[in-house]
Amino acid sequence: MWNHVCMNFPDLQINGRAGGSRYLRLAEALAAAVACGDLPLGVRLPSERDLAARLGVSRTTVASAYREIESRGLVRGHVGRGTFVCAGPEGDEAPFAWRGKLARGALRSLDPTLGHLMSWASNPEVISFAAGVPALDRFPTELFAQLTAEILRTNPAAALGHGPSEGQPRLRAAIARRFGVPRERVLVLTGAQQGLDLVARCMLDPGDAVVMDRPGYLGAIQAFRAAGAHVVGWDVLRADMGELEDLLLRYRPKLIYTNPSFQNPTGRTLPLPERQELLALAARYRTAVIEDGTYEELYFTKPPPPPLYHLDRRGVVIHVGSFSKMLAPGLRLGWLVAAEAIVGQLALVKQRTDAQTANLGQLVVAELIGGGRLDEHVRLLRAEHARRLAAMEAELERALPQRSLSYIRPEGGMYLWCRLPARMLARDLLERAIGAGIAFVNGDAFYTEDGGSGELRLCFAGVPAETIRAGVRKLAAVWEPEMGATSRVAAGVAPVV
Amino acid sequence: MWNHVCMNFPDLQINGRAGGSRYLRLAEALAAAVACGDLPLGVRLPSERDLAARLGVSRTTVASAYREIESRGLVRGHVGRGTFVCAGPEGDEAPFAWRGKLARGALRSLDPTLGHLMSWASNPEVISFAAGVPALDRFPTELFAQLTAEILRTNPAAALGHGPSEGQPRLRAAIARRFGVPRERVLVLTGAQQGLDLVARCMLDPGDAVVMDRPGYLGAIQAFRAAGAHVVGWDVLRADMGELEDLLLRYRPKLIYTNPSFQNPTGRTLPLPERQELLALAARYRTAVIEDGTYEELYFTKPPPPPLYHLDRRGVVIHVGSFSKMLAPGLRLGWLVAAEAIVGQLALVKQRTDAQTANLGQLVVAELIGGGRLDEHVRLLRAEHARRLAAMEAELERALPQRSLSYIRPEGGMYLWCRLPARMLARDLLERAIGAGIAFVNGDAFYTEDGGSGELRLCFAGVPAETIRAGVRKLAAVWEPEMGATSRVAAGVAPVV
Repeated sequence: MWNHVCMNFPDLQINGRAGGSRYLRLAEALAAAVACGDLPLGVRLPSERDLAARLGVSRTTVASAYREIESRGLVRGHVGRGTFVCAGPEGDEAPFAWRGKLARGALRSLDPTLGHLMSWASNPEVISFAAGVPALDRFPTELFAQLTAEILRTNPAAALGHGPSEGQPRLRAAIARRFGVPRERVLVLTGAQQGLDLVARCMLDPGDAVVMDRPGYLGAIQAFRAAGAHVVGWDVLRADMGELEDLLLRYRPKLIYTNPSFQNPTGRTLPLPERQELLALAARYRTAVIEDGTYEELYFTKPPPPPLYHLDRRGVVIHVGSFSKMLAPGLRLGWLVAAEAIVGQLALVKQRTDAQTANLGQLVVAELIGGGRLDEHVRLLRAEHARRLAAMEAELERALPQRSLSYIRPEGGMYLWCRLPARMLARDLLERAIGAGIAFVNGDAFYTEDGGSGELRLCFAGVPAETIRAGVRKLAAVWEPEMGATSRVAAGVAPVV
Repeated sequence: MWNHVCMNFPDLQINGRAGGSRYLRLAEALAAAVACGDLPLGVRLPSERDLAARLGVSRTTVASAYREIESRGLVRGHVGRGTFVCAGPEGDEAPFAWRGKLARGALRSLDPTLGHLMSWASNPEVISFAAGVPALDRFPTELFAQLTAEILRTNPAAALGHGPSEGQPRLRAAIARRFGVPRERVLVLTGAQQGLDLVARCMLDPGDAVVMDRPGYLGAIQAFRAAGAHVVGWDVLRADMGELEDLLLRYRPKLIYTNPSFQNPTGRTLPLPERQELLALAARYRTAVIEDGTYEELYFTKPPPPPLYHLDRRGVVIHVGSFSKMLAPGLRLGWLVAAEAIVGQLALVKQRTDAQTANLGQLVVAELIGGGRLDEHVRLLRAEHARRLAAMEAELERALPQRSLSYIRPEGGMYLWCRLPARMLARDLLERAIGAGIAFVNGDAFYTEDGGSGELRLCFAGVPAETIRAGVRKLAAVWEPEMGATSRVAAGVAPVV
């Protein structure tokens, strides 16, 4: 959009009749040319020197006119590249176009995919395999309401007043005990996404490199891109440590981001030797690691290897956790664990970002942890999610044509990562699926570069087995007739084929 | 800290005995010099060329060594300025120093004052006139608990699942009806602070200017500074429109930030003619305006003039509102109202920042608004806060020496902005006050440049009248004996004298 050059620069009329100073008349003429489309979005204006020569005015006049239309948000100057039309005018009354007032950073990542996921998830007309939600129908709503009432009655000051940016002391202590760290290393968050955003804001300068899972979590890609980082993918299904070392050598990244247990979106778990090697590489290349531990407790039968944070003896890991999948995403609660030096910095950034996390939810969850009710609920989810996955697998095999869909069977987490037959595009299927009232995420949303057009992610955890069966049948109904059956690959053995 | 030059560059031993490549040996020598203090924090290293000549090695060796110690977080290169020591090593095992890995932006504003306010506010040993809290002891806790339970029972999906980044449709609709705008213009926030941070991230590039109230809200100063903005103060007590125009002409700011009703910290309300003039100036200089409306409903008897947002006919105002002062800060709920074009952009930034605001609080507050209970509560607060102000004024006159403290009597809001006698410093008084178990905010925290050392802010709304009296007596007890009595100036008439 920024690459066109203005080929036919319009004739500008800036003769004396319009009144006012010459630069303002030129600015009006330029604004009119933007308004009528003679200067369309994205074209580069002539240099100040060229336009001055062409119009027979001073270069100062042109510079002032350019500054004037920049203040109206119509053009934007880029040092060394020139001045470009960046917006049409907002309407007769508006003194400027909002779009033209946006920061460069805000223009970097405007992907609305996350927003779509959420709106499908909250639309009762759509069966959603899209957003990652646990079995919310099993949430202990009554207990939650009871604890809320109790806290408001017995400790209204803590519930209603200001609290520390680091989090409510009771919740920090409960998380610290459960995760096995001193409580000064815990920072309470409004969800794991906030953790990624805070780390990005705190550590990334524009141009810094980040190496992350490919495919990988969409919200991480967005947070790092927004900070101006160069995001480089590391093939998470191959999990080749030689490739990782090549990337560290070549890009010298500031951060490695990985989701090592029941990865989003592939469901893949990084084995213990690879975890140890990843940590050794991070230390050798002096790179910090963000470990996204969102799914690590949601195994079906066998726990994954220990978190990177606990394997690390050199203090390079920031561990991000979430209550969104163990309890409910609508609570907006998560945490991170890291060296005190960086927790303190992150808390300062959080302070000016949202001051603190809301108190009531923190205090209720601290009670749920302390009373052992969280662990109980997580055990329930493990069994329930395994049943839902079984229902989804069975229905996919029953409803879809033979050999038409391959997927990795995960041993935990919430996602089935699927590959479509050759020449079938996930975006096309999604369009038909949405029309039929069924949603999933097309694979390309998880790629930093090209890729994923023939892949898709199904969340099997959020809806009960019978709804899963209904959803899969709807999906089968919009399947193209020429396609073939479900084949599966055991997790960790090989990439989808 | 960045301005020292390394005067006595240490002798580095990089002879062959240490093994390894030459650049690594040089890097080790430099790291050792940092560790033992020979190269202290803040010094500039010699240029690559100079050090290469001095050591008789190639410039590439020095460049590689500098890059190596930069990856350890020990030094940081600044284009055109050189390479500076930015951290000591973190300990023997750590492969890098976290502080050296921080983004430039994160280093811009590390003021912990907001954090101190919050910790005093949540410390039961301290009577706090510091943080801005309303009469939380009058909060309808039972009703809130009832509504929470009801929503969890009747609509668990909305309470627990994902929701739109823009906010729960019911709360957006309730805010829109109450404020008199279409609901597409409303964005729900986790408090007004998030609104300021989102606007800063969305609109400000490093170097952009922002004109804001001086003295003005601390959290606004921090949000704009963190975005790299040049923050310029406009004297809010003089409210001189000529001065504002001069600032707009001189700095061409991207934003004007103002808190026009019962301003934080001065309590000042901008009269109607000045509001109209401010809007005309903003339109003339094509500058967006952020109006902080946090206190506008908390008048004692007479409402302030209409918000800038409603006076504006040209769409230049972003109005930020908060439930922190009308209900409770611990809920972390606020909103903003603006043109749809910018609301959409802000929602995209919010999406990658924290995905969405927690649902339960939103749904409960939507009920409080719809049922008229919010308005009822605000009426109660108006009367209660007026009584608390009266108690504070009376006790200040009684307990402090004659003519020792002057202040503006506000007609709403929550703050008494006070001036100390000449030569008395608010920071000194605060230190003694904290020792005696009483907190307030020293005035300089509200200034972008120098100023405020003899001023302080007392919040009169948060504690009951008898606690206010006890607190003022504690303050009087640490008052220096030589100081003289309380004199007051009616709001809007003149600055404190």
